[in-house]
Amino acid sequence: MQIAKSLQKIPSSYIREILDAASSDQVISLAGGLPEPGSFPLDLMKPALENMTAIPEVFQYGNTAGYQPLLDYIRVHYTLPDDHMALVSTGSQQGIDLIARAFIDPGDKIVMEAPSYLGAMQVFGLSQADILSVEQNAEGPDLDALETCFAASEIKLFYAVPDFHNPTGVSWSLNTRKKVAELCQKYDVVLVEDAPYRELRFSGEMLPLVSSFCPDHSIVLRSYSKIASPGIRIGAVTGKQDYIRPLIKVKQGADLHSSFPMQALLLAVLQNTGFPAHLEKTRALYQQRYQGLMDILCEDLPEGCEVKPIEGGMFVWLKVPECDTLDLAGKLLQAGVAVVPSKVFYPRNQQKDAALRLNFTSTTTEEQRKAVKIMMQVIRTL
Amino acid sequence: MQIAKSLQKIPSSYIREILDAASSDQVISLAGGLPEPGSFPLDLMKPALENMTAIPEVFQYGNTAGYQPLLDYIRVHYTLPDDHMALVSTGSQQGIDLIARAFIDPGDKIVMEAPSYLGAMQVFGLSQADILSVEQNAEGPDLDALETCFAASEIKLFYAVPDFHNPTGVSWSLNTRKKVAELCQKYDVVLVEDAPYRELRFSGEMLPLVSSFCPDHSIVLRSYSKIASPGIRIGAVTGKQDYIRPLIKVKQGADLHSSFPMQALLLAVLQNTGFPAHLEKTRALYQQRYQGLMDILCEDLPEGCEVKPIEGGMFVWLKVPECDTLDLAGKLLQAGVAVVPSKVFYPRNQQKDAALRLNFTSTTTEEQRKAVKIMMQVIRTL
Repeated sequence: MQIAKSLQKIPSSYIREILDAASSDQVISLAGGLPEPGSFPLDLMKPALENMTAIPEVFQYGNTAGYQPLLDYIRVHYTLPDDHMALVSTGSQQGIDLIARAFIDPGDKIVMEAPSYLGAMQVFGLSQADILSVEQNAEGPDLDALETCFAASEIKLFYAVPDFHNPTGVSWSLNTRKKVAELCQKYDVVLVEDAPYRELRFSGEMLPLVSSFCPDHSIVLRSYSKIASPGIRIGAVTGKQDYIRPLIKVKQGADLHSSFPMQALLLAVLQNTGFPAHLEKTRALYQQRYQGLMDILCEDLPEGCEVKPIEGGMFVWLKVPECDTLDLAGKLLQAGVAVVPSKVFYPRNQQKDAALRLNFTSTTTEEQRKAVKIMMQVIRTL
Repeated sequence: MQIAKSLQKIPSSYIREILDAASSDQVISLAGGLPEPGSFPLDLMKPALENMTAIPEVFQYGNTAGYQPLLDYIRVHYTLPDDHMALVSTGSQQGIDLIARAFIDPGDKIVMEAPSYLGAMQVFGLSQADILSVEQNAEGPDLDALETCFAASEIKLFYAVPDFHNPTGVSWSLNTRKKVAELCQKYDVVLVEDAPYRELRFSGEMLPLVSSFCPDHSIVLRSYSKIASPGIRIGAVTGKQDYIRPLIKVKQGADLHSSFPMQALLLAVLQNTGFPAHLEKTRALYQQRYQGLMDILCEDLPEGCEVKPIEGGMFVWLKVPECDTLDLAGKLLQAGVAVVPSKVFYPRNQQKDAALRLNFTSTTTEEQRKAVKIMMQVIRTL
């Protein structure tokens, strides 16, 4: 049985392959996007798990949109307007997939930042969208390039990660947020605002969601993987009912609904009085690990390398001298360090920056020191 | 933002709408496919839930194929050949969806029994497959029609529910199982064997899976919704590695993986020494409810109505005098009984049998008696 043409075009995931290799004990991995397991709120989860059988309705089939008490929480917590609604998804990854399946016909034009989140590129690739790229600067996407792109042809949606971008760590400035919202309204483009790292800000000032400036031209993807647990696979999508209802229709065929006991568990964690302190602890841990990595990197940065400070999230973006970054990542892996090369974050592998994405959340400062030492040695041989 | 063309063609689900209406307290519902909530193995789940935080790795990101201890259990329990593998899905519904996305190009021909499972028709419709139908008799699909269909053009797959078919309750005879397997091999068609009700046999003899006669020309979908809990959304897909690997690739973009705590919970239930007794109890309950419904139906069956005995599953198929069954179901709903009309189970609503699908697992015999009385009154007015 031959596989579908749309799937034939999708390369197998680099991240997946490198993560397999990186799981060896001999390798220090800065490659994944894993939260620190020690940060999982197990103590907040335990009572909810112990009491789960006291709400037997979560074990029955449920509504596709989600577990009503969690939907109610989301409505209140994010102060959704009356004509907006929420859908609980199997991780925010499923949210991206449902948007692509509900709205994208093959050949439809969409815009992404370049570089961009791999999992989104994979999904939009599978839906056979025509992916246009807009370069990123220190404030977010290049606004002139974005407007040129929006003006040139009909664009269905603009997918972006404005808070602590994956892979670059960039957080959009307030001005860029407002301007992007204006452009989306002016050119009738829907902003898909993916906000998985939003709660992981450890310095600087919290900025409004871009979609708060264009609520009726946007869909927001929320992740609980970084602040609660990725293994439970619960995310949420919010937006105008007209945008969310088609997602529900696709989800009905896709998996009927996401696990209700996991939705009840997440709700219990979010409502636990200990949750704010848990979040603070996670942020403090990540700040300390980030600062540790930056200090080590800046001690001894080879010529042609550059790393910009960030204010939150899980990644720093180490620019390296011009080279084939896939090749460099291969050499680093042989030397015992796993990283993700910039090439894979660009559509059609058309890399602009030669860079490496370094995760700092799941390694100790000591592991980071070892890894950086090896990296610098290898980079100096370039 | 306009929705995708593939989605525009999908009608909103009748079942979904009727279930909404049927949730009123004034309505007795024989419409859904809900297990009896009292049959959920809460006592087997409780210790596993209480101990969940003792296996913290389930709260981290995991492999797309599934939680390894559950995959190991599946391999042993179903005695998978070495070159076969399993994928854990978000309910077996997701298994169908992944198969469609991985293998179906728009216009590809697939075969389904008519009538057939609504959720599968919806998925294959969304993938824009050309759905060919083969009629069903008391032993399973009409074998001559099936061979004519397989011989006439290139068929990618044959989707079927051989054990206690949804909606008819028919279980394929041994001879039909062998012949279908032969035809799949002869014409190089992959059998997608959906087996959600297989463990719900309460009389007659357990028959081998059809795919046991054509293991390399088949994919098997397993559900745990009927024997453990639907709310946890865990199913499994097994088959040759060549068939499963493309599903994993699609699933990676679709939701990364299914909930690991729920996979660990399911495994604990399946391995609990109390599980066989739980299964026996569920079967005995369903047999009693089935027998109750049949007795009531046969007491006073209007002319032109017919109902055949079944040996397991969740549904009986009540043939009614020729009529617009959608209209009949509407009248019944007004009178206080929800059922599903045969029309919705046929591609393009081309109904052959005028019939109603009656679920017997989630209503008491007393509720069934009331519902049947109302049904018979309305049918007699036809």
